[in-house]
Amino acid sequence: MAARNAFYAQSGGVTAVVNATAAGVIETARRHKSRIRQVYAGRNGIIGALTEDLIDTGRESAAAIRALKTTPAGAFGSCRYKLASFEKDPRQYERLIEVFRAHDIGYFFYNGGNGSADTCLKVSQLSQRLGYPLVAVHVPKTVDNDLAVTDCCPGFGSVAKYVATSMREAAFDVASMAKTSTRVFVLEVMGRHAGWIAAAVGLADDESTPIPLLLLFPEIAFDQTAFLAAVDAKVKQHGYCCVGVSEGLKNADGKLLAEAGTTDAFGHAQLGGVGPLVANLIKDKLGQKYHWAVADYLQRAARHLASKTDLDQAYAVGKAAVDLAVAGKNAVMPAIVRVSDAPYRWKIGVAPLDQVANVEKHMPRDYITPDGFGITAKARKYLSPLIRGEAFPPFRDGLPRYVRLKNVAVPRKLATEFKL
Amino acid sequence: MAARNAFYAQSGGVTAVVNATAAGVIETARRHKSRIRQVYAGRNGIIGALTEDLIDTGRESAAAIRALKTTPAGAFGSCRYKLASFEKDPRQYERLIEVFRAHDIGYFFYNGGNGSADTCLKVSQLSQRLGYPLVAVHVPKTVDNDLAVTDCCPGFGSVAKYVATSMREAAFDVASMAKTSTRVFVLEVMGRHAGWIAAAVGLADDESTPIPLLLLFPEIAFDQTAFLAAVDAKVKQHGYCCVGVSEGLKNADGKLLAEAGTTDAFGHAQLGGVGPLVANLIKDKLGQKYHWAVADYLQRAARHLASKTDLDQAYAVGKAAVDLAVAGKNAVMPAIVRVSDAPYRWKIGVAPLDQVANVEKHMPRDYITPDGFGITAKARKYLSPLIRGEAFPPFRDGLPRYVRLKNVAVPRKLATEFKL
Repeated sequence: MAARNAFYAQSGGVTAVVNATAAGVIETARRHKSRIRQVYAGRNGIIGALTEDLIDTGRESAAAIRALKTTPAGAFGSCRYKLASFEKDPRQYERLIEVFRAHDIGYFFYNGGNGSADTCLKVSQLSQRLGYPLVAVHVPKTVDNDLAVTDCCPGFGSVAKYVATSMREAAFDVASMAKTSTRVFVLEVMGRHAGWIAAAVGLADDESTPIPLLLLFPEIAFDQTAFLAAVDAKVKQHGYCCVGVSEGLKNADGKLLAEAGTTDAFGHAQLGGVGPLVANLIKDKLGQKYHWAVADYLQRAARHLASKTDLDQAYAVGKAAVDLAVAGKNAVMPAIVRVSDAPYRWKIGVAPLDQVANVEKHMPRDYITPDGFGITAKARKYLSPLIRGEAFPPFRDGLPRYVRLKNVAVPRKLATEFKL
Repeated sequence: MAARNAFYAQSGGVTAVVNATAAGVIETARRHKSRIRQVYAGRNGIIGALTEDLIDTGRESAAAIRALKTTPAGAFGSCRYKLASFEKDPRQYERLIEVFRAHDIGYFFYNGGNGSADTCLKVSQLSQRLGYPLVAVHVPKTVDNDLAVTDCCPGFGSVAKYVATSMREAAFDVASMAKTSTRVFVLEVMGRHAGWIAAAVGLADDESTPIPLLLLFPEIAFDQTAFLAAVDAKVKQHGYCCVGVSEGLKNADGKLLAEAGTTDAFGHAQLGGVGPLVANLIKDKLGQKYHWAVADYLQRAARHLASKTDLDQAYAVGKAAVDLAVAGKNAVMPAIVRVSDAPYRWKIGVAPLDQVANVEKHMPRDYITPDGFGITAKARKYLSPLIRGEAFPPFRDGLPRYVRLKNVAVPRKLATEFKL
């Protein structure tokens, strides 16, 4: 079988370690020269395939590809662009095959979350449907940690480590100031639908370092009275209180608190997310001085504080994806399998893509304490290994040294343009 | 001369390295046993002295004191509490002397910013005024970097490293997403009166890693039209734009933007600080998708990313304070003296307290580019050495391991209570 080219694309929100997955794909492909000629990356994800804007990763040095392991975000550009179904819009799929054919793409690696898994599944079916030989492998990536089958998702462990560390540090700060100043600190974290990241904030508080901490999950409808009573009790007992709130916090009607608050009764826009909203509530109702932070992109881009476990897994799924592809496994995703909790051990397994595509893994209710404001021992057992280990990037002049690739375009072969 | 006790207190907002200064004070005092019997720390700063709530640091092990070097925030508690002048309220000063006399305090170390320097100066004058022998030494600490005489302030370098790193990381994220999603990222940083921290954000963008970055300083009145034009130009040229905004940004009337925006024309409260405000403006006027982050306490508590230079200086001023005190130098502050820029070398000098108390060091105008949105080469030369070097704390189970002291109270000797 002659060697063919591979296509790799990053999809959706980026992470601190998705480039490590890219390194896993590219370095492994380079060891399979007899099967994979070059890895072409999509510039800005799948858009690069549709517009025939391919990046020749063969133009990057081994050192540059290695440096991807210590560089956050998406080195080739990502995108938020969902392909419609084949039935609805066959044009897009025909275009993909047109581009793949022109560049002899035999392997398709799609690095994303569950929406991307669905796209990858559709692409995996093109081979039969359009008579074009292609092996499609999805590579897991999402800070939301909501992919099915896999025990956890590359990208999540590093966010988890960042938010837990940040909350612990802020808690030490608030504790110092509480006598005369700030008594409540609110940290807003990501997670529109699932509270995995909010749960990770809970790791800040452990046996060695107890912290008066309350968590607000998207899974638990916001009960203002119960929450304020809980804050009040913590402040009375400990002198201060920390709150980790998920951006996806909803009220009893299932409406996002942040959105419910975006306009007032007169239609005036309200700035800020749910973090400042909750902080303001505490000031209004309890009269406590507060500070709030919204970590936003800082949390998912924080390569300087990546989890070594997460990094290793991110690389491993990239490597496994190539191994699966050259073995001819179509429509699959390498998954992380937890072998044991203590000591934590994991291996790479294989998930059929139709079990992953568009399935959202929710946080089990028994990961959240009965009162809805904390995490259980079961949650700790699950979460704790994922943040373990440090993998600092190289620093120069006090700042992390991140790589920027050359991202040289593969010469176009098609005369046709494609309109997105 | 018989050994006497020392009093040490942390004052005002805490930092990632103020505990390293405490370690410098305590470890050095322990080497001067013939002069300093014990170091008593004020619980919650000067309030601990007024209420006779003293902490016996002699009850802490050498390992615990050493661990202060890697622990953020104020291990003994800090406070925001400013003593009035002696003329206005002699009662407070008389009380201080009453407590000091009861506990044979012969050395007073006050660890804070320029307000605290003023308090320390007043205390230094008590010796003569009230006939009580006392040596008072101020120990510099402020993330605001606005103390006079000293080249820089312990605490600042670590915040600077944190905000520059965070902006660089977020910039990589935005660059990845800009094709279809976020094009503008806004990071709000601390700095009510001086733009030192905003200037440090500028270090994210350098020759090795250029970033389309605009800065908004408290020193430069916000010019909405010029700013929006600058954002628009960056997005057009680079596809995205990053903005670092100081919480102290003011409009042409000298009013804080964040406060100007706290209520709308109908008197409805607006949540959020200047970061979301600027981000919203960009969306409204330019129609660009945005993300914003407010780092708040995360930036000044981020011991996990402390600057080694800052840490070394924080320890050195603590050590020097004790050396000055046992040499009988009253009403002084150890200052950091820059010996050379390249290679960066510094030493400890001595500042007379009356040159420091209540003086605010502003950022020179020639540190800001003529357009008001960036930093000059001169600013870089000053700032760059301050963030150099890493000094990671110990980690356990994936999280930084920070010490909590026993903070055992010194038995009270006075029957009198003091009302704050």
